[in-house]
Amino acid sequence: MNRRFLLVRRPNGMPVSEDFLLVEAPMPALPPGGLIVRNHYASLDPAQRGWMDDVPSYMPPIALGDAVRAATLGIVHASDNPAFAPGDWVRGSHALEDYTAVPAGGFTRPIDIDAVERPTLFLSALGGNAMTAYFGLLDVARPRAGQTLLVTGAAGGVGSIVGQIGRIMGCRTIGIAGGPEKCRRLVDQFGFDAAIDYKGKTSSVLASEIGAQAPGGVDILFENVGGDVMDAVLLNLAERARIVLCGLISEYNATGRVGIRNLWQILVRRATLHGMIVADYIPRFAEAADDISRWLAEGRLHVEEDVQDGLENAYPTFMRLFSGANRGKQILKIV
Amino acid sequence: MNRRFLLVRRPNGMPVSEDFLLVEAPMPALPPGGLIVRNHYASLDPAQRGWMDDVPSYMPPIALGDAVRAATLGIVHASDNPAFAPGDWVRGSHALEDYTAVPAGGFTRPIDIDAVERPTLFLSALGGNAMTAYFGLLDVARPRAGQTLLVTGAAGGVGSIVGQIGRIMGCRTIGIAGGPEKCRRLVDQFGFDAAIDYKGKTSSVLASEIGAQAPGGVDILFENVGGDVMDAVLLNLAERARIVLCGLISEYNATGRVGIRNLWQILVRRATLHGMIVADYIPRFAEAADDISRWLAEGRLHVEEDVQDGLENAYPTFMRLFSGANRGKQILKIV
Repeated sequence: MNRRFLLVRRPNGMPVSEDFLLVEAPMPALPPGGLIVRNHYASLDPAQRGWMDDVPSYMPPIALGDAVRAATLGIVHASDNPAFAPGDWVRGSHALEDYTAVPAGGFTRPIDIDAVERPTLFLSALGGNAMTAYFGLLDVARPRAGQTLLVTGAAGGVGSIVGQIGRIMGCRTIGIAGGPEKCRRLVDQFGFDAAIDYKGKTSSVLASEIGAQAPGGVDILFENVGGDVMDAVLLNLAERARIVLCGLISEYNATGRVGIRNLWQILVRRATLHGMIVADYIPRFAEAADDISRWLAEGRLHVEEDVQDGLENAYPTFMRLFSGANRGKQILKIV
Repeated sequence: MNRRFLLVRRPNGMPVSEDFLLVEAPMPALPPGGLIVRNHYASLDPAQRGWMDDVPSYMPPIALGDAVRAATLGIVHASDNPAFAPGDWVRGSHALEDYTAVPAGGFTRPIDIDAVERPTLFLSALGGNAMTAYFGLLDVARPRAGQTLLVTGAAGGVGSIVGQIGRIMGCRTIGIAGGPEKCRRLVDQFGFDAAIDYKGKTSSVLASEIGAQAPGGVDILFENVGGDVMDAVLLNLAERARIVLCGLISEYNATGRVGIRNLWQILVRRATLHGMIVADYIPRFAEAADDISRWLAEGRLHVEEDVQDGLENAYPTFMRLFSGANRGKQILKIV
């Protein structure tokens, strides 16, 4: 049998458990030229919330009645593709289910599990979040030593890596996160120079606190949040600031989007804002993996994983991303 | 005597006549190394509204009690600078007043009035608005033939030139403006391929109409408006669209800014948004003037001027920009 975590209704704002259904389905048939993957670990990411909406995006929405799309690590269970043998570890765009049938030409790649301390590193330090941090910062924003980098959602799976790579590049790093405990972790575990707690503050108070930490202005904003937090940062841009628009977690579950009102500051500061999607960098992932592996080995990069257990906990685990309960990269152990 | 149109109170939202005062002051003294310019024509621009607010910007705000800053054309009345003689025509950052005292090192440059059909061309076809259009489109957006260019505020002093340069570059050009008469002018006088009237339409209706005119998406958005109009365009971006953020006229008089809520589309389309300020291009204005003069001579560029008369009409003339009453580049004849 194949347990599958289905999307059965498009969420209206914050997802509720009734939007999903855990079912037992028969084992899928092996697609011609394809694979069946036994999923072991799934990455849970804010981007999945976007795939649940039927709006124009960079990927088709998850079809109603289909298992929730997710990056997973797993083992080849059956193969009709000579490049894969049963028992091989793979990573790919699969779903929250025990077994995924991958058609010929699917997004599944072999991984060398012996090269890492634990398989989940392929979803954390070497996962899509890390690739997003690496290419978003180094390729899009192109930081120089001495510049001020501000990261929103700084304690998250992307933000915590952005801050650390920024520090490696010699930037002054400021992280914004929710709550004193996360802010402590930003400084103590991830080495940010300063942490700002956005909780319970008006956008204008937040703007003043950012100004106090970045008196010369923010040269690079790595944006994961949007809304009031982003608006507060926009009031503190340096001339020709670069903004990497990576995510807008404050908006994903909003029934009425807050948006940003300080767009004017992008004009007066001659700033640029760049939308980025990590999938565009797939051909260059190996380049990032080399650097990241070295930084991990040298102890210059610290990655946290928040691994929850069991497909039956898919819904509450997913919701940890939006309540802010997750401590590091959110992963679900399927088996 | 020197008539001066002063800013005496910072407008709260839409400017009212009580925010200004027309006074008669004594003739200013000639600054050491500087000039006194007799102003003849002033450019009225939405940007002046921004200078009236005390918020972070690319220029200091106009001081209360000072004459409203404006680009003007005038004649040197007195000079303590050997590079200028009384009687020379000049253009510069002056003010809405009969005589401006320009300190040494001010932004005043000689102009060759004999090279043009009429002096006001230095505020229209060769003015800051035209330079904004030229460099915003050609240097920031870098259009290629066959691409779709959408211009908001398309009937205005900047937008109407952007559309025409876009057509010269071989783009499909779509203009958005307010009202059927302006839309007719976009097509008939400025040669846009399509015109869309935003008035009385919800953002989603507007988004559909844009989609119908740009089925392959908008490659370049030249943004002068912001708010709901911009949000509607964001739903129709092509992959890797470039957005030139030139102005946000819908926001300048708003007491609560509308902002934009479809920022997400910039992310999913991997678009980029660039804030631009024309002052950064001053060293390259001659380059633009050469091209524009040639296009004017060849009849490929058509520029309209809306010249109102008299410093006593400064307030109603300025307000024409926000009511949409202006027909072409708004100019005030001072004398």
